[in-house]
Amino acid sequence: VALGVRATPAEGASLQAAFEGICEELRATRPTAVNLFWAIERMRRRFTEAFPRGGAVLRAALLEEALAIQAEDLESCRRMGDLGASLVPEGARILTHCNAGALATAGYGTALGVVRSAARQGKVRNVFADETRPYLQGARLTTWELAQDGIPATLITDSTAGHLMATHEVDVVLVGADRIAANGDVANKIGTYTLAVLAKENNLPFLVAAPASTFDLATPSGEGIPIEERSSAEVTHHGGRRLAPEGVRVRNPAFDVTPHRFVTAIISELGIARPPYTETLRGLLGR
Amino acid sequence: VALGVRATPAEGASLQAAFEGICEELRATRPTAVNLFWAIERMRRRFTEAFPRGGAVLRAALLEEALAIQAEDLESCRRMGDLGASLVPEGARILTHCNAGALATAGYGTALGVVRSAARQGKVRNVFADETRPYLQGARLTTWELAQDGIPATLITDSTAGHLMATHEVDVVLVGADRIAANGDVANKIGTYTLAVLAKENNLPFLVAAPASTFDLATPSGEGIPIEERSSAEVTHHGGRRLAPEGVRVRNPAFDVTPHRFVTAIISELGIARPPYTETLRGLLGR
Repeated sequence: VALGVRATPAEGASLQAAFEGICEELRATRPTAVNLFWAIERMRRRFTEAFPRGGAVLRAALLEEALAIQAEDLESCRRMGDLGASLVPEGARILTHCNAGALATAGYGTALGVVRSAARQGKVRNVFADETRPYLQGARLTTWELAQDGIPATLITDSTAGHLMATHEVDVVLVGADRIAANGDVANKIGTYTLAVLAKENNLPFLVAAPASTFDLATPSGEGIPIEERSSAEVTHHGGRRLAPEGVRVRNPAFDVTPHRFVTAIISELGIARPPYTETLRGLLGR
Repeated sequence: VALGVRATPAEGASLQAAFEGICEELRATRPTAVNLFWAIERMRRRFTEAFPRGGAVLRAALLEEALAIQAEDLESCRRMGDLGASLVPEGARILTHCNAGALATAGYGTALGVVRSAARQGKVRNVFADETRPYLQGARLTTWELAQDGIPATLITDSTAGHLMATHEVDVVLVGADRIAANGDVANKIGTYTLAVLAKENNLPFLVAAPASTFDLATPSGEGIPIEERSSAEVTHHGGRRLAPEGVRVRNPAFDVTPHRFVTAIISELGIARPPYTETLRGLLGR
């Protein structure tokens, strides 16, 4: 938003219209993760406040707000990491999904923030990183981040997670979240629900690490969370190479919903919520 | 075995040695699927029987035995398909994994044989084919087979299966097997255990279709089944292109074990077995 407003020379009513267009374009990029809308609304409040002054002052205010969001997000990741590390057992073999790391946040990460803090305390024996089809964020990003930090990591296909849980090679499952409904239902990268069901079957803790900006108390349960369906080419092609026959039909939902009864705890920068989430999430937000 | 013996000019003791070498080479190719060993043993019996006659007669006998195995496998797939179709509900949306089709058998297929028979009866609304990482047999083979037969199919990533079960878009899960222990534990392509856990959680039938040659009564339970671990390159590369950072550690088990308590029924050419499998599998084999 700050960059969009900086790029337009408009002022007054036409700046207002340009601002609405920028917000609408950003809102339309993705439907599932709620902190996108949260951040746009925060920029809107600052825009409204600074609008009467216009010009360079307005633009500087928006940049300041954006940098504040960035700094707060980094700080909240660090705090979430330190809080969440208390839930990681000694010698933990942690299984994670997708990338909930420094590359997906302003830095340090949510689920990987917890991993980083736990690793600093010497508690992490290994991290199993699901490759996370179709976009391979786990293979491409999570393994890279962990290698940079010298945290032992093992890449697996998504289907291998269940086998490793059943053969007692995993101690805890730890993921991020794109949106958490008022009752604690968690929308996150496709495959998360599967891991939660497998964790319950194998009596393993299933932990979710996410900033309070992903809590969506206006949405009562996961059924109300829109699930983005992405291009079939993500599944049928890799690197321009076709993996499946021409003309095959594809379903490619990018997220799924994990019902709250599978979630052992939700770790945020405000504290750790446990069931019943309807009360504990409100408690953390002070509502 | 028939081709190997045909290719050697040896006779007598040196033919016997060549035969043992051929069998050993084939045995060493894969450890998990038990009908590989079953077929080699069958060829060994025929070899031993025809050995005294030697020469072209022995070689013709081995070819005849191989062609008999092929014909019997096709026939048993057809029979399995027709028997199994009775378990498929009208308008079924079937989820399958890997390729248990004509390309994996002498023809018609095991799990896909059931799909084919059910489709001929007009019962199949759709087949969701898991892509089946890392080797993508579902994306490459199963979708192709179904398209050839005009059976409606939808390709999904392995992680999407759980989401579709939870959103009531799947009626039955149907897979093949590489080995079935005496107690009904099923070794099959990695990811099968995960589907079985998800099916149970969502109150869906979990059906296994496999010929009696995969029943291994000598192995009491799934714990005794060796799981092949394959090359890390299957996970880190596709089409010569690297998907993950250099030096990343990988675990790549090619199979997993589904405990019998998750299995609703086992469909074979000899009939349909239901729990308790220790008795019903023996019953089918007449032991």
